[in-house]
Amino acid sequence: MEQAEYRAWQVKFERIRSNKVFETIVIAIIIFSALVIGAKTYEETTRFSQIMDWLDYAVTIFFVIEIAIRMAAEPRLKNFFKSGWNLFDFIIVVASLIPLDSAESVLLARLLRVFRVLRLVSIVPELRVLLSAFLKALPKMAYVALFMFIIFYIYGAAGSLIFREINPFYWENVAVAMLTLFRIATFESWTSIMYETMEVYPWSWMYYVSFIFFSAFIFLNMMIGIVLDVMQKESTAFDLEQGVGEAADIQHLRDEVRAMHDKLDHIYQAVQTPKERP
Amino acid sequence: MEQAEYRAWQVKFERIRSNKVFETIVIAIIIFSALVIGAKTYEETTRFSQIMDWLDYAVTIFFVIEIAIRMAAEPRLKNFFKSGWNLFDFIIVVASLIPLDSAESVLLARLLRVFRVLRLVSIVPELRVLLSAFLKALPKMAYVALFMFIIFYIYGAAGSLIFREINPFYWENVAVAMLTLFRIATFESWTSIMYETMEVYPWSWMYYVSFIFFSAFIFLNMMIGIVLDVMQKESTAFDLEQGVGEAADIQHLRDEVRAMHDKLDHIYQAVQTPKERP
Amino acid sequence: MEQAEYRAWQVKFERIRSNKVFETIVIAIIIFSALVIGAKTYEETTRFSQIMDWLDYAVTIFFVIEIAIRMAAEPRLKNFFKSGWNLFDFIIVVASLIPLDSAESVLLARLLRVFRVLRLVSIVPELRVLLSAFLKALPKMAYVALFMFIIFYIYGAAGSLIFREINPFYWENVAVAMLTLFRIATFESWTSIMYETMEVYPWSWMYYVSFIFFSAFIFLNMMIGIVLDVMQKESTAFDLEQGVGEAADIQHLRDEVRAMHDKLDHIYQAVQTPKERP
Amino acid sequence: MEQAEYRAWQVKFERIRSNKVFETIVIAIIIFSALVIGAKTYEETTRFSQIMDWLDYAVTIFFVIEIAIRMAAEPRLKNFFKSGWNLFDFIIVVASLIPLDSAESVLLARLLRVFRVLRLVSIVPELRVLLSAFLKALPKMAYVALFMFIIFYIYGAAGSLIFREINPFYWENVAVAMLTLFRIATFESWTSIMYETMEVYPWSWMYYVSFIFFSAFIFLNMMIGIVLDVMQKESTAFDLEQGVGEAADIQHLRDEVRAMHDKLDHIYQAVQTPKERP
Repeated sequence: MEQAEYRAWQVKFERIRSNKVFETIVIAIIIFSALVIGAKTYEETTRFSQIMDWLDYAVTIFFVIEIAIRMAAEPRLKNFFKSGWNLFDFIIVVASLIPLDSAESVLLARLLRVFRVLRLVSIVPELRVLLSAFLKALPKMAYVALFMFIIFYIYGAAGSLIFREINPFYWENVAVAMLTLFRIATFESWTSIMYETMEVYPWSWMYYVSFIFFSAFIFLNMMIGIVLDVMQKESTAFDLEQGVGEAADIQHLRDEVRAMHDKLDHIYQAVQTPKERP
Repeated sequence: MEQAEYRAWQVKFERIRSNKVFETIVIAIIIFSALVIGAKTYEETTRFSQIMDWLDYAVTIFFVIEIAIRMAAEPRLKNFFKSGWNLFDFIIVVASLIPLDSAESVLLARLLRVFRVLRLVSIVPELRVLLSAFLKALPKMAYVALFMFIIFYIYGAAGSLIFREINPFYWENVAVAMLTLFRIATFESWTSIMYETMEVYPWSWMYYVSFIFFSAFIFLNMMIGIVLDVMQKESTAFDLEQGVGEAADIQHLRDEVRAMHDKLDHIYQAVQTPKERP
Repeated sequence: MEQAEYRAWQVKFERIRSNKVFETIVIAIIIFSALVIGAKTYEETTRFSQIMDWLDYAVTIFFVIEIAIRMAAEPRLKNFFKSGWNLFDFIIVVASLIPLDSAESVLLARLLRVFRVLRLVSIVPELRVLLSAFLKALPKMAYVALFMFIIFYIYGAAGSLIFREINPFYWENVAVAMLTLFRIATFESWTSIMYETMEVYPWSWMYYVSFIFFSAFIFLNMMIGIVLDVMQKESTAFDLEQGVGEAADIQHLRDEVRAMHDKLDHIYQAVQTPKERP
Repeated sequence: MEQAEYRAWQVKFERIRSNKVFETIVIAIIIFSALVIGAKTYEETTRFSQIMDWLDYAVTIFFVIEIAIRMAAEPRLKNFFKSGWNLFDFIIVVASLIPLDSAESVLLARLLRVFRVLRLVSIVPELRVLLSAFLKALPKMAYVALFMFIIFYIYGAAGSLIFREINPFYWENVAVAMLTLFRIATFESWTSIMYETMEVYPWSWMYYVSFIFFSAFIFLNMMIGIVLDVMQKESTAFDLEQGVGEAADIQHLRDEVRAMHDKLDHIYQAVQTPKERP
């Protein structure tokens, strides 16, 4: 008897979850929550900070209720966590719940609430597609990133060994040197660093120019990797839709021709036989 | 009787509108108008400012007449506004008409006249194509832009919360922080901002490096989105022209083979029957 | 008699021109000439300036003789100038001949000799192909460049009208403003210009951000234009080689099937007739 | 008898070489070696420098043993050096062996050990593929690089001739000028150099703007060259897999139709003959 009642509630919750109005309200609350977060960064709002905090609590409670409804709507709770997007939402909501009210951790609590804006990505289908595409391209990009890391590491270690005495701010150790190299890869005031080391080692322009060439090449490679990856998927999808059409046409043609051939063989023998009989 | 006269006028106007010479004159006047606008920005021309103003009035009157002719040439005025390009021209011409002669709004009046140069886009077909391509790519780009905005908003809010005390000029509130992030995304002196915050929060290089990675990735995605969009349209257009050719060839072949098959069936039966008869 | 002698000379010259050794010598002299030009920019070489000048004269004379041989080798002089590459070489050689020995024009004379290095492009086939590809992509790029110019002009005129009072160095007139905008398009210290105008007009960040978006978009468009242009040519070339293969296969198939159909019709009638006869 | 013993050893070495555990150990040692190299760049590690040196020697000895095993495992030593990757590893190991213990060459010895990190590229298959792709794209890129060098050389020589007096730091000679141009190509504070020369030669903005256009175009060309190169290889590989499928289908169809045609000819003659006989 109790289970039937539970089931009836579940159906109700599911009806709420798939309700268009409910979805619109959730999107509105997310955007409202983002605005509250943004408003808090304005100094002028400090005198409304009490109201801001109340709004924040209200949003937090709404999100807890919303995720509770979605969890209750699922026949088996396990299924809820099978979807990466549900897990994503759950972590964001739970993270913003952690009661960090000691003075020093206020900042962390606020930062955790900033991530609520990301829920927009999980609720708008078009943004989901974009994020999925990003995640699918990750494995191909990982090895390029590893290659890039090796280049950075070698140049970083070499740069630190050679140039440390000249300017420890840029070349103190391999980690600092790699940050300097990242800066050089973005072309950000790299010549001032180069001119400084060229005074001691006049050949050091080769270090910088070769590094810029390598890092630009690797960036290109990464870009092409992504383009080709996306294109390949598009063309495979296209083949499944249309390409099969033509191939299937030819296949049908072959079947028909083969059937004709069989009949022709019969006719051939029928025609041959009387000729040979007499 | 009156309507016939009106119709006669309309035909005349239409003849003017589609006249090649008239079109060339319009292009010449647009370029001339652009030159007058440009010339006005030179200090040396202040003593000719009277002449400049007269030239400006003349151009304005010419444009009003031109658009009046084009409107009169249309059998129904409603059709005139159905074309986006006509509306585009109409707004530019009307905007430059607004009589803003009070001292302070002179600047606005001048700015509105600057937009006349845009009429070159609506009159040269090749530029129209470019602008159309831009407008067609917009919807696909809109979601990427939204995604980009979310990333900027999260980083902006977080940056404002954490770094505000260090340098309010860059991190005062979420809006100022987002402008700072746009600057970082263009690699413009971003390291000076980073070194400043690293003195207080040594780990803050992660904030900058991760943001540069994300924004570069989103930019790439946008670029690839446009490339694929254009390519898809090209390939669809290509298929309509040529691809259909081959598919149609195969279709014809199938029809012919089927017809042969039918006749072969008749022959088959004709040949079989006598054999079975005796 | 004289003409036969002339013809004999011509054949001799043609043999020289198409001689591999001669071509190698020409390439060597061009590279040597480039090295002399480069060496002259070093201060240390001023004491050898006499020798340098002699080498320069020697190279000039060699180039004159070489082009004279190539002209003499052509049966009709008119044909020589029909090739763009010959014209290109001729202009470079003639330009370096102009006797500019007055003190002030020495610089111009030297600059004209710098362009001799370009002869390397006209003599190495692979570089010719690259330059041709560049020239072929020009028309498509021209309209994008025009579109870009319009955007720059509108932003330049507006910027000059609004910001002139703030900093005449950047916004004095439309030409100076366009140079400033080119600088902004390359992201070169654009924020210092923006912060300066934002003090007077706080909304002026919109001017810069929108301009960067437009110019980046136009650059992308240009890039995609070139990529698609090259790809289209490649695919057309590919179709001519292989695509035709498959289409031709299907065509042959149709012809064969049609011939079979005709014969089948005859058999059909032959088989039908006896059946109907009795 | 001795040779058989030698052979037995070889088989043992080969078993070690192709052992998964051995490979994992080698990768671990390479990464450990990289960490030691990195750790040495930290000042805090100077008091452990004795231990660091011992670890370094240990790694060096391990690498020598590893490469010795791989050489011993090869039936013929010549074959070992036929593989580019083996040669690559051999050079890196041998280079780090050179006994440079005099004070001044310590730096060089350390740098040579930094390159050990590159062994990661030769041992991880995915990184090998990336490096191979890079090396395959090199020939196509070489001519673009030559073209780029010519443009840089002409602009460098011209810039040095014209601007040397203005600022020898940037324009002293052709080599210094080319480094300045590389800086301009990366958009790094190029306007300060331009404004300096514009004070003397007001038209000199044309030099910079045209150079930026050319270098950007060449960069684009290079990029497109790589993209097309990769795409062409992909499409050829695709054709070998699938494209042949359809072409082969059509070929089979033609063969079958031809066989039918032959039989039909026989029938045709058999049917015709009786008709003509009477």
